[in-house]
Amino acid sequence: MTAADVIDCCHALAACSEETGRTTRTFLSPPMREVHARLTRLMEASGMQVRMDAAGNLRGVYPGMHVDAPRLIIGSHLDTVRQAGAFDGVLGVVLGIALVRRLAGRRYPVSLEVIGFSEEEGIRFGVPFIGSRALAGTLDGAVLDRTDADGCSVRRAIANYGLDPAAVADAKWRGPTLGYLEFHIEQGPVLDALGLPLGVVSAIVGQSRFAVTFTGAANHAGTTPMDARRDAVAGAAEWITAIEREARGTPGLVATVGRLDVVPGSANVIPGSCVATLDVRHADDEVRTLTAARMIGFAGQVAGRRQLLVHVDPRLDQPAVPTDASLRARLEAAVTAAGYPVHVMASGAGHDAMVLAPLMPTAMLFLRTPAGISHHPDESVLEADVAAALRVGAMFLDDVAGVS
Amino acid sequence: MTAADVIDCCHALAACSEETGRTTRTFLSPPMREVHARLTRLMEASGMQVRMDAAGNLRGVYPGMHVDAPRLIIGSHLDTVRQAGAFDGVLGVVLGIALVRRLAGRRYPVSLEVIGFSEEEGIRFGVPFIGSRALAGTLDGAVLDRTDADGCSVRRAIANYGLDPAAVADAKWRGPTLGYLEFHIEQGPVLDALGLPLGVVSAIVGQSRFAVTFTGAANHAGTTPMDARRDAVAGAAEWITAIEREARGTPGLVATVGRLDVVPGSANVIPGSCVATLDVRHADDEVRTLTAARMIGFAGQVAGRRQLLVHVDPRLDQPAVPTDASLRARLEAAVTAAGYPVHVMASGAGHDAMVLAPLMPTAMLFLRTPAGISHHPDESVLEADVAAALRVGAMFLDDVAGVS
Repeated sequence: MTAADVIDCCHALAACSEETGRTTRTFLSPPMREVHARLTRLMEASGMQVRMDAAGNLRGVYPGMHVDAPRLIIGSHLDTVRQAGAFDGVLGVVLGIALVRRLAGRRYPVSLEVIGFSEEEGIRFGVPFIGSRALAGTLDGAVLDRTDADGCSVRRAIANYGLDPAAVADAKWRGPTLGYLEFHIEQGPVLDALGLPLGVVSAIVGQSRFAVTFTGAANHAGTTPMDARRDAVAGAAEWITAIEREARGTPGLVATVGRLDVVPGSANVIPGSCVATLDVRHADDEVRTLTAARMIGFAGQVAGRRQLLVHVDPRLDQPAVPTDASLRARLEAAVTAAGYPVHVMASGAGHDAMVLAPLMPTAMLFLRTPAGISHHPDESVLEADVAAALRVGAMFLDDVAGVS
Repeated sequence: MTAADVIDCCHALAACSEETGRTTRTFLSPPMREVHARLTRLMEASGMQVRMDAAGNLRGVYPGMHVDAPRLIIGSHLDTVRQAGAFDGVLGVVLGIALVRRLAGRRYPVSLEVIGFSEEEGIRFGVPFIGSRALAGTLDGAVLDRTDADGCSVRRAIANYGLDPAAVADAKWRGPTLGYLEFHIEQGPVLDALGLPLGVVSAIVGQSRFAVTFTGAANHAGTTPMDARRDAVAGAAEWITAIEREARGTPGLVATVGRLDVVPGSANVIPGSCVATLDVRHADDEVRTLTAARMIGFAGQVAGRRQLLVHVDPRLDQPAVPTDASLRARLEAAVTAAGYPVHVMASGAGHDAMVLAPLMPTAMLFLRTPAGISHHPDESVLEADVAAALRVGAMFLDDVAGVS
């Protein structure tokens, strides 16, 4: 499979959708059958033994030279967000198959397993990583009981697909592995801005999330002089500018106020309260938590100066997940050997590799996302970048397998 | 009627409500009948001839010494906001009656008309000043056709109350008048902060209102570095801080951002757009319009620096309405004669006086509002301040009537 073939395959799979004319494909929804059928044919044509585990993960094994050859896993997810692009997730699976296909039946010192995870985006049930959590053995009963908008549980969805929800525990990875390699589009503008095709992921960033409530006093917008106001929105605005300044001054850190709820929210009433969300991410947990603490401190300072009350509700404190140093070094070497510049970067978004990291060494290769556009029908990849990923993948496999 | 009697009367009228335990009384709603009945008894007991005009205004005339004695009108409104206090509006009507009652039947060189306007707050039909607009002759058919939440029109509400909607035009004031005097609570914190009982109103401030839309690019909160963002909320926040700074630096001006609508409004998505309302008020139209233009200019500057688009939708440009210089001078003289300091101030809220100003000379006296709390069950007045208003009102009447 050439890079163009890989791209064509992704485009063809994008037509498997719950919506006409757009790509929306959630956990084990009807169009997933067609994706599974096409990829199964492709895997089998590449010499792989294909099965589906009870969590709906499509798993194709290309046996090694020996029965007990160590195994390398290559994977990503097959579900999409609503009105998605054609490459987020699927590209990593198709690239895995293309790398197997390239071996053309030749036996290898390692066995390869390509996994198309059933769920990563969290769309249908509001919780992400159902596929990789099943592989990691961390998919508990509470997740299986969650229901979608129609009241259908994860358990029921599995059964409706013809799988056995009681066997989900059997999806857990057991035994040794060389590790997990994931190809994924960057979903950000960094590589595009740098003019680079590829990025080697150092870590999935950690996240802090808060809801910060400023409370002042709602009052008449006409009769209350400026110096007699306790304006919750004016306080929040000052705080948001301070957050942005702090984030810009902290390399690698991102901070976002994505939601504001203003009460009472009338043009002619001074806002009595304003709830703002704060999302802070960084690859280094210490930098993240210290910066987040400083930002929360700003809220207290602003509120103090303005006679506002501030209430901070911590919503998430998720540590960063580094990729494996040794596997990453091999990936960097492969990038160099393939003739591309090595750019090491953190991933600001979560990926299946993050879920598998406690279980096995992981490595991730990002492909440039033109204009940083993802989760959108305009999401794209460059054919040359896909070709670069194929070259790097092949060199990485040869290196891991000890094939010169 | 002493000041205590006036306050007791207001409290008693506050029990006339559409809600049990709270004061809510909209245009010609059932509890308004009881208010009309009580005030009619009080007016008649004070020697007044009482009628109701077709717009539901309660009008009590105390005849002058001669049939053609010039007339002074004293008025305010009898409707309330939802869950109101006991003094906003009603106090001005009861004070008018108390001033007539003080004459104890004695004939006077001027005739007096006390008007309790049927509607000022704009609650039931979403348009304010129905009562005073009828008196001013500016209540057009479009207003009469407006409907409340139950689909009942102004016209129908008038008919249901037993009045003739076809006769609304007859409510228009015709003939000469000495002018209109309105007592009203300040509804702001200024007099309270200054420790003053009374304020003489120089003008009802003008208002500019805008909806300002900042449009950037919604994007992933994790994968988009700070320097690659076009964050609509960050831009709006910077603008709001600039507005506040400008307003604080412009004496007498107030500016409010009361509402923010953020899209998409998710904690983990950089805001793609943010609509902010801006309300600017000042007694001097030139100061107001120039400052508002400068604030709108800031939006353009902020947007330019941040590669955001900005769209400005002007929603209101209402000129200031000064009170009458001559009548105001008499009111100031009365305040001084009564032994109180004169504090001249603009009104940040609209009042019936504003609607009548094109038709006749107007004057307004504010009573201190403890803690600036109004439109709330905790709204209050001090008995000493009501006594001060009665003294000032009596001296004003004597002055206007040429009675030494």
